[in-house]
Amino acid sequence: MSGNTFGKSFTVTTFGESHGPALGCIVDGCPPGLPLSEADIQPDLDRRKPGTSKFVTQRKEEDKVRILSGVFEGLTTGTPIALLIENSDQRSYDYDKIKQVFRPNHADYAYIQKYGIRDHRGGGRSSARETAARVAAGAIAKKWLKVRYGVEIRGCLEQMGPIKVARSDWSVVNGNPFFAADPAKLPALEAHIEMLRSAKDSCGALLYVEAAGVPPGWGEPVFDRLDADIARALMGINAVKAVEIGDGFGVVDQRGSEHRDELSPQGFLSNHSGGISGGISTGQTVYARLAIKPTSSIQIPGKTIDQDGQATEMITTGRHDPCVGLRATPIAEAMLALVLIDHALRQRAQNGDVVPATPRIPGEPR
Amino acid sequence: MSGNTFGKSFTVTTFGESHGPALGCIVDGCPPGLPLSEADIQPDLDRRKPGTSKFVTQRKEEDKVRILSGVFEGLTTGTPIALLIENSDQRSYDYDKIKQVFRPNHADYAYIQKYGIRDHRGGGRSSARETAARVAAGAIAKKWLKVRYGVEIRGCLEQMGPIKVARSDWSVVNGNPFFAADPAKLPALEAHIEMLRSAKDSCGALLYVEAAGVPPGWGEPVFDRLDADIARALMGINAVKAVEIGDGFGVVDQRGSEHRDELSPQGFLSNHSGGISGGISTGQTVYARLAIKPTSSIQIPGKTIDQDGQATEMITTGRHDPCVGLRATPIAEAMLALVLIDHALRQRAQNGDVVPATPRIPGEPR
Amino acid sequence: MSGNTFGKSFTVTTFGESHGPALGCIVDGCPPGLPLSEADIQPDLDRRKPGTSKFVTQRKEEDKVRILSGVFEGLTTGTPIALLIENSDQRSYDYDKIKQVFRPNHADYAYIQKYGIRDHRGGGRSSARETAARVAAGAIAKKWLKVRYGVEIRGCLEQMGPIKVARSDWSVVNGNPFFAADPAKLPALEAHIEMLRSAKDSCGALLYVEAAGVPPGWGEPVFDRLDADIARALMGINAVKAVEIGDGFGVVDQRGSEHRDELSPQGFLSNHSGGISGGISTGQTVYARLAIKPTSSIQIPGKTIDQDGQATEMITTGRHDPCVGLRATPIAEAMLALVLIDHALRQRAQNGDVVPATPRIPGEPR
Amino acid sequence: MSGNTFGKSFTVTTFGESHGPALGCIVDGCPPGLPLSEADIQPDLDRRKPGTSKFVTQRKEEDKVRILSGVFEGLTTGTPIALLIENSDQRSYDYDKIKQVFRPNHADYAYIQKYGIRDHRGGGRSSARETAARVAAGAIAKKWLKVRYGVEIRGCLEQMGPIKVARSDWSVVNGNPFFAADPAKLPALEAHIEMLRSAKDSCGALLYVEAAGVPPGWGEPVFDRLDADIARALMGINAVKAVEIGDGFGVVDQRGSEHRDELSPQGFLSNHSGGISGGISTGQTVYARLAIKPTSSIQIPGKTIDQDGQATEMITTGRHDPCVGLRATPIAEAMLALVLIDHALRQRAQNGDVVPATPRIPGEPR
Repeated sequence: MSGNTFGKSFTVTTFGESHGPALGCIVDGCPPGLPLSEADIQPDLDRRKPGTSKFVTQRKEEDKVRILSGVFEGLTTGTPIALLIENSDQRSYDYDKIKQVFRPNHADYAYIQKYGIRDHRGGGRSSARETAARVAAGAIAKKWLKVRYGVEIRGCLEQMGPIKVARSDWSVVNGNPFFAADPAKLPALEAHIEMLRSAKDSCGALLYVEAAGVPPGWGEPVFDRLDADIARALMGINAVKAVEIGDGFGVVDQRGSEHRDELSPQGFLSNHSGGISGGISTGQTVYARLAIKPTSSIQIPGKTIDQDGQATEMITTGRHDPCVGLRATPIAEAMLALVLIDHALRQRAQNGDVVPATPRIPGEPR
Repeated sequence: MSGNTFGKSFTVTTFGESHGPALGCIVDGCPPGLPLSEADIQPDLDRRKPGTSKFVTQRKEEDKVRILSGVFEGLTTGTPIALLIENSDQRSYDYDKIKQVFRPNHADYAYIQKYGIRDHRGGGRSSARETAARVAAGAIAKKWLKVRYGVEIRGCLEQMGPIKVARSDWSVVNGNPFFAADPAKLPALEAHIEMLRSAKDSCGALLYVEAAGVPPGWGEPVFDRLDADIARALMGINAVKAVEIGDGFGVVDQRGSEHRDELSPQGFLSNHSGGISGGISTGQTVYARLAIKPTSSIQIPGKTIDQDGQATEMITTGRHDPCVGLRATPIAEAMLALVLIDHALRQRAQNGDVVPATPRIPGEPR
Repeated sequence: MSGNTFGKSFTVTTFGESHGPALGCIVDGCPPGLPLSEADIQPDLDRRKPGTSKFVTQRKEEDKVRILSGVFEGLTTGTPIALLIENSDQRSYDYDKIKQVFRPNHADYAYIQKYGIRDHRGGGRSSARETAARVAAGAIAKKWLKVRYGVEIRGCLEQMGPIKVARSDWSVVNGNPFFAADPAKLPALEAHIEMLRSAKDSCGALLYVEAAGVPPGWGEPVFDRLDADIARALMGINAVKAVEIGDGFGVVDQRGSEHRDELSPQGFLSNHSGGISGGISTGQTVYARLAIKPTSSIQIPGKTIDQDGQATEMITTGRHDPCVGLRATPIAEAMLALVLIDHALRQRAQNGDVVPATPRIPGEPR
Repeated sequence: MSGNTFGKSFTVTTFGESHGPALGCIVDGCPPGLPLSEADIQPDLDRRKPGTSKFVTQRKEEDKVRILSGVFEGLTTGTPIALLIENSDQRSYDYDKIKQVFRPNHADYAYIQKYGIRDHRGGGRSSARETAARVAAGAIAKKWLKVRYGVEIRGCLEQMGPIKVARSDWSVVNGNPFFAADPAKLPALEAHIEMLRSAKDSCGALLYVEAAGVPPGWGEPVFDRLDADIARALMGINAVKAVEIGDGFGVVDQRGSEHRDELSPQGFLSNHSGGISGGISTGQTVYARLAIKPTSSIQIPGKTIDQDGQATEMITTGRHDPCVGLRATPIAEAMLALVLIDHALRQRAQNGDVVPATPRIPGEPR
């Protein structure tokens, strides 16, 4: 059943396979009057796209986005915005050898079980290439959130394999291929990737993502909580296996007296909660982490079966990232933006358009 | 905007406040022909309900469920099933003192920011008492999954504060108030709760939940992935701050060669993925973990503000759990069941009703 | 699959069978701060309820509504509002004779085909009794629309069988059991019902419903148009077979020069469109008509089959309305209100909370 | 808020403006394994496209559709199918004169009220040109319904202005530009269009549409009834003002004894209900009618206002259909197909994949 639409008020429906003619999305529900052109979207696509450094896959894709609708004379009109990205480097002959075989840890096996048919080229729909469409949509969401509410969204790498990276200098994040915020760690990160290349292996990563300036009141208890929807959005990125908000798994061994965020007339005295309480934003910075599994495509032979159920071994050749987490920061930012804009619109549906005072006074219907 | 409905095909809409007259839900989309009575639902409610041991809140609630519709002569009819649980022990006078004050780490502040009004009694809608309705709905989902597909869902405590608990003996889980699977750890758990009581403090917990027997093919890429929906479902439980599936955060420091689940003609050789690949179930056991923050209601004074924005201090009296995680196992099971039944129905919407062979053969429209 | 929820922003999920213990609904997404009590809802229920005159079914139902949640100290809180109506007069022994037989023109046959099982008592879920829940939810919608936007919703009978009734005097509509706006036609209406009673037959009806004061801008092209959603809402009422908006079927033989609503600086010069253009409200009165088929339960024997497929004849005894359309006016008003409030909230989600000036000026993001 | 997606299980999200670079849609939820190529879609687009006869608009559009995703080696894969139709004949200079003026009976005024901004060229999003995307999606739905269930969908003109057209010969419908089923009426229809051209006026139309071979059991009471969803789908077509199912408005003056469809062991003895009972298909032919208003774009001057609210007069030049209803038959068929496939999938979600026997036997969970 249809599962390619994200959001309830601001919806993004994506399409496209890794080696089809194009991929893209329809953004529906974007408020009118927002200045928008391809130049607002392309930078995030460029941050995500392959082939930008020797540490990521060498597939060459321009990832040039075209706006096909919903923008008139430079402003959004409130009608659906279609975004189109053509695939140019579709070396699908790389994939003929896997047509009959399920690559270990790829979605090949699950797709054939589900659908009885699959486009095997580059993983088809299960390829992370699909996330280009999300990043494009997310750029629109980011812009509206910033223009309308002053929300700033950013992310970085916090760990790659065993190497932890501090959030010490945000200014360098977009200047290195790791999205690392600690320039001192760049040599170690580079060396680790080189080592993995030699070992024909891959490693996992931990990313951090935040949104500053989120007004209080976003999130719809009890099921469409802001934290629940962020968890879904981040876990829905290819290769993600864990998500935490605020102190996350750290809460297990905390005391209540330690975890709680006390309040003062000047605001909260800490932010263990990740800016969300009862599923609703508190006005603090919203932040989360996501763990990304090691790239499945490696060149160490692995046991598997073919479509006839026969045992075989295979290695995955082709052009792959030694650490898929390296290109996931813009994707995580985009997904966070998509959750937030959806909840921004939902909040004003029910509660009106006023950014609330602190505290608000009840008494009149909204 | 409406956020109290869970699911797309099998939907659960809950209502009710902690100290209102009743809470409950409407289950819509349950397949017809399932034998169902209150006796199928009550056991899970009893596992969750308060007052069952000295280690949890002493609030006395019968949590007796009534089926108001959708069942005829002992079978579900395919029409909505309404479930009603009346509140009996509504000592709301306990809460008058917090009417004007935001309890630290509770949803009080976020609710007033969002809605401009709140039912302060026992947390109103933000109370974990609301989860009784989810547990009741989950019991229906569990039964159908078991009868129709043989799916078995269960959960247990893996850590409480600093105390780790092995999954060594499932047979004891429902016989102790901790949902612990290691009888040897019960004395330590009891002692820890006693210590917290004396210290007037609370602690967090880590839960494990699994579903065995899930057929391959459940989950709808790319956004309604099974893992994404499980993350949302579990993160949407009160006090949960982190969710992981399969190896979870452990993947960050794994190698690709270590993480991947190899395949043989007899099946998978490992289950690092948590039974989900590309957002789709693989036929392996689906499993996940969730981290629950320490109870917010503690008796150590904390800084806060009142509704006029003035600084104050407060302690939370009343009847509270020293570790809210202790009663969350049935809730986690219920939420996992609700995700699975929704995807079971969605799978057969698009792909028909046949449990797939391995591997499946393409070629005819489904 | 779940189909018992109406609306996207303001949702109503109903439950209940004709002869079950209770029926009701959950209203989710109602804005907070609205003064609300049972006294706001009961009058519309009383307008719909059976047994109020000799011209409708003599089933005795109090139709007393209870609010179970979502209202605190007399104001809505923004959380789900559960409404419960207990069934009191469940003379289901009347229905034992139809347990094995499909009543002609009832939903009996379709339900058994769909679900393989049915609650035969009084039509079970297919009974118009279910609409009590819609009327209750609609009363909340009506109140909010009136308080927040000044929208006034009302309806009346325009034709019963061959008898046409003018909309000449709205003040008498709620004072007669026909919801007729022309007092001069009451004797003819009464005589027609008496004649049908004698003939053991039934007749159809045509209803008119309108909403005055709807601001321009409600409705979401291209699929969730205001007119499309009104058509769905009204066609979804039991026994309705046709819906028209504005000039409706009259447009077939109109010219463009005749049909079009010209504009002046003081507003529109006519309202052929029914207050909706391009699927969006124009600020004019929104109005529609609905045709209701004759009551299926009549006492003239009809050919049918039983559950074994054998031919039989049957008459429907029990307590039935000779013209079901007579009690449908409050239902049509409720459904119109539910459509409008949903679109009111959706409009402010995307376009903000400001009632637009005429004409509006573009240029800033909303 | 997003309103450009149709359906719940089989969803179609459209985009595009009349004079933008392209329009199209994403079809999500199509079952895998269906043989599909552009050749399956193009014929219905060709039936709808402009410029095919002298009786419709002379705008020249190829309306060539491209499949961008979701099909692999000639079969659908279960992933989203993106369809792209480029606009070629965008003579937008025709529209500069209406940039500041609201054309009477067009959506211009409503759009500016709603969004504060509009793409005035050719009506932008409100143009019937958008329906090309629906027709393309509908062709996929039609094919699946036919291959999987043998459902046959077709439509024709029943009245144009004052001229009634019998359904006497289906074989000629696609051979004339009126979609008329009575060859004897073609001269009168042609003459009427010529007369309207001379009079610079337009007229309305009545269409008939049916689906034969629909299995019993499709439709989800109580809100997502099959009839309610058909009403919404047809009323949501540009310019439609009324919809009826079965006997439609005729029921008002019918008796119950006259209207009811009696049952025999061989099936129903009549089909007044339009193949739907209680919101569920009965296995009979499903049929409906829709009334389409006269084309708004006429060359008789009409009173209106400009964006500054000043009175003015205008005529609509450009290339327009004297009767928009003439090209709506393929659109109505498409919308009916989209409703039916959505309900086909929903039925098997809840009730399993078996086409039911008559009557079905209860007793096992589905």
